Amino acid sequence: MLQEWIKAQRPDDEQLAERLEKARAELAVRQMQIKEKKLPVLVLMEGWGAAGKGSVLGKVIKNLDPRFFKVSTMSQPSDVEKREPFLYRHFIKIPEQGKLMFFDGGWMEEITGQYLRDKLTDKEYRQRIVSIRRFERTLTDNGYLVMKFFFHIEEKEQSKRLKRLLDDKNASWRVSEDDLWQNKNYKKAFKVFDRYLFDTNQSNAPWYLIDSEDRKWAELQMTEFLVKAIDTALVNESHAAPILQNTFQLKTMPKLSEIPLKGKELTPEEYKDQLDKCQKRLRELHNELYLKKIPVIIAYEGWDAAGKGGNIKRVAAALDPRGYEVHPIASPEPHEKARHYLWRFWTRLPKDGHIAIFDRTWYGRVMVERLEGFCSENDWQRAYNEINEFEKELKDWGAVIVKFWVHIDKDTQLARFTDRQNTPEKQWKITDEDWRNREKWDLYEEAIDEMIEKTSTSFAPWHVLESNDKKYARIKALKTIIKEIEKKL
Amino acid sequence: MLQEWIKAQRPDDEQLAERLEKARAELAVRQMQIKEKKLPVLVLMEGWGAAGKGSVLGKVIKNLDPRFFKVSTMSQPSDVEKREPFLYRHFIKIPEQGKLMFFDGGWMEEITGQYLRDKLTDKEYRQRIVSIRRFERTLTDNGYLVMKFFFHIEEKEQSKRLKRLLDDKNASWRVSEDDLWQNKNYKKAFKVFDRYLFDTNQSNAPWYLIDSEDRKWAELQMTEFLVKAIDTALVNESHAAPILQNTFQLKTMPKLSEIPLKGKELTPEEYKDQLDKCQKRLRELHNELYLKKIPVIIAYEGWDAAGKGGNIKRVAAALDPRGYEVHPIASPEPHEKARHYLWRFWTRLPKDGHIAIFDRTWYGRVMVERLEGFCSENDWQRAYNEINEFEKELKDWGAVIVKFWVHIDKDTQLARFTDRQNTPEKQWKITDEDWRNREKWDLYEEAIDEMIEKTSTSFAPWHVLESNDKKYARIKALKTIIKEIEKKL
Repeated sequence: MLQEWIKAQRPDDEQLAERLEKARAELAVRQMQIKEKKLPVLVLMEGWGAAGKGSVLGKVIKNLDPRFFKVSTMSQPSDVEKREPFLYRHFIKIPEQGKLMFFDGGWMEEITGQYLRDKLTDKEYRQRIVSIRRFERTLTDNGYLVMKFFFHIEEKEQSKRLKRLLDDKNASWRVSEDDLWQNKNYKKAFKVFDRYLFDTNQSNAPWYLIDSEDRKWAELQMTEFLVKAIDTALVNESHAAPILQNTFQLKTMPKLSEIPLKGKELTPEEYKDQLDKCQKRLRELHNELYLKKIPVIIAYEGWDAAGKGGNIKRVAAALDPRGYEVHPIASPEPHEKARHYLWRFWTRLPKDGHIAIFDRTWYGRVMVERLEGFCSENDWQRAYNEINEFEKELKDWGAVIVKFWVHIDKDTQLARFTDRQNTPEKQWKITDEDWRNREKWDLYEEAIDEMIEKTSTSFAPWHVLESNDKKYARIKALKTIIKEIEKKL
Repeated sequence: MLQEWIKAQRPDDEQLAERLEKARAELAVRQMQIKEKKLPVLVLMEGWGAAGKGSVLGKVIKNLDPRFFKVSTMSQPSDVEKREPFLYRHFIKIPEQGKLMFFDGGWMEEITGQYLRDKLTDKEYRQRIVSIRRFERTLTDNGYLVMKFFFHIEEKEQSKRLKRLLDDKNASWRVSEDDLWQNKNYKKAFKVFDRYLFDTNQSNAPWYLIDSEDRKWAELQMTEFLVKAIDTALVNESHAAPILQNTFQLKTMPKLSEIPLKGKELTPEEYKDQLDKCQKRLRELHNELYLKKIPVIIAYEGWDAAGKGGNIKRVAAALDPRGYEVHPIASPEPHEKARHYLWRFWTRLPKDGHIAIFDRTWYGRVMVERLEGFCSENDWQRAYNEINEFEKELKDWGAVIVKFWVHIDKDTQLARFTDRQNTPEKQWKITDEDWRNREKWDLYEEAIDEMIEKTSTSFAPWHVLESNDKKYARIKALKTIIKEIEKKL
């Protein structure tokens, strides 16, 4: 992209001042529309060292109300962040609806910086590109405006600026080792930047090349582009994003109705015996996972009263409390609802070597949210692929992913509901909502079948736990977890 | 993509036969849905020589009604096709609504083949990739299902197959020089294929890698993928595609109301004198264009009775009739309506060295089609970018593009309408529709202002011809054409 780029012609000073004044005023109006229309706006600013990103950003935000924007400054990942998937530290910073988030340097700087310094292989570089393409696309598909600016200056101009800064006692601290390295290796960096821009120039999240030879001109370009793109995003407000073709390998899975529940039972003695053995084995494995820094994500979904809680308890009992966390997932809170629906799961990911158990999960999107109309049809139809992509990130990070559907039949649920109703110390466990959900059993079954069909990828298939006998389901859960961990070790 | 690819596990023979039977039956049903829902389906099949694309295609179409599909076989561009823009011969073959078009080899084979044989520079390769990304995206944005299959076999398997074919007298003709070259240069080709797949793997038009070790298995994979993707496309049927951010450089243009028409006049003597000079010059230039193989595209739009016809006549009069064509554009015919709206302009492009004059153009999309509701709001809003991309293809091909808005004021139109009405030999030129359009003058003006604002790219800006005095407009048209051609020569 840099190679073929043709600079726009800079207007003369007078015209520039005039257009800048106009554009600033327009941007101020747009921020109110962003708020009103609840548009989340993510602005990524990348570019050469000393290209003036920071000072242009300083100018741009002067026209904005500080309540409606935030600025994130690029840094290389911290030691804690290094223990998370690559996208983690970027995903958790996405703006909420109605707000602007400016990234003063971001994932491009991280990836190209590492690649330039031979800290990423070609294969890893490409994997990052795939992640970024998906990341930016799932944001725009979910209504985000994503804008990406690259501030460009030429080699000589960069040298001149760096020299000027170094000569100035009060400014020399602003010149980093990286900047100097980059200027010395300008041609090499040019090639890598050029490639990154080409590789990530998606129609839904395109790059804007900013001629940064002069600061006011750069500010004008960025401000005018912001205004236009916000206008486009506001037009798009009501559009649904197309459902994508699935290209993940899927395992052929049975429908729930085809899964026999009868005879899936254990005697108390068998249970006791196997529980001890399994828990002992899982305990050992947990240590090994910790030492090898392998993260594990265990996802539980299931019918009400299927025995999720007790099942999770038996798994957790085998684990070192310092190394795992259980996340009970209820309906999203307002600050969670204001972001991409996967945001609250990204923020809850374990560190490497740790285990996260989710009691209900991101699959709420295609079950309760689908059936209760908490999201649009387009939203939940898109979600199968978005979730597969999410889990692929976890997989590529090196995680073991185990997904359980805890399954019972309708009669068993009725018996357990009635028992809960009639047993004072269990009454807290049964609510009117449970009864309402039960009435929608068939609709749920249809949604669950579709979910299992569409999200049983080769790397993260569903495991059905037959739980008419809870003991059987618990042992099967433990054995499945053990098997999946052993495969990875 | 090939690098990181993990083969799906082949089912055993019995399962395979069972799944194949099911998938074939499903595909047969899907073809009826395609017809009913008027879905246009484009299937691109690429892959290694001797990977069995052709024979799999033969199997797949056996399940389809021949009325509903066509097959296009890859060939390198003919001498005539080489005189057209790169995308031309692919674009003109897109299927119509309700039909399937299978490309047995296509643009991937063309691009990678040329790149592998050093007939494309890196820069040209990248330009091709950008064209392909846009081509495939504008199809899917316009409701096309685009599926891309790559049939993969390993080096040894390819050698074995080629050898077997060569040894068989009746089959040896099927082995091309290219196939042998490819097998000798397998590693080099692998790298180039891998890069192409990565570069063009867009979410809206993704690649499917087909394990082609065995023909039935390859057929199963392809058929199952076809069925699933058609289902997805049918779900998307009612969705609008998002409007994209504009990243083309635009010239700042005045609104129509800001353009003075008064005083833009020529005396008959001035006119006669300049007309002769300009036509003489244009005649000379036309020869030069022909020798240098530069194509010219002149697009006329304007108010009814603005004088388009007479203007075009004066331009055409200067040209060698063997080297130009005038295309009067009326409303699209059924077979044109059944395809992407730009299709009928792609098919009318000139050869290099030739001139095409369009009397009304692709801009009908954002004027009459917008105002008369012949397309959806989403359609015309998307069109500005689609048209800019279309013209960028023409520009990159090397064309001179001149776009005229022939402008008059409302009073002048009334005078000319009345004159036509009252002059028997001119009456054919005025219809009720002209009067109806006149009533919508203000709506048209708004649409035209938006069109001029959004499609005056740095490479193909609009030129307004002040035509209250037709003589003035004609000379301005000639001078503009001459200037734009001279710039290019």
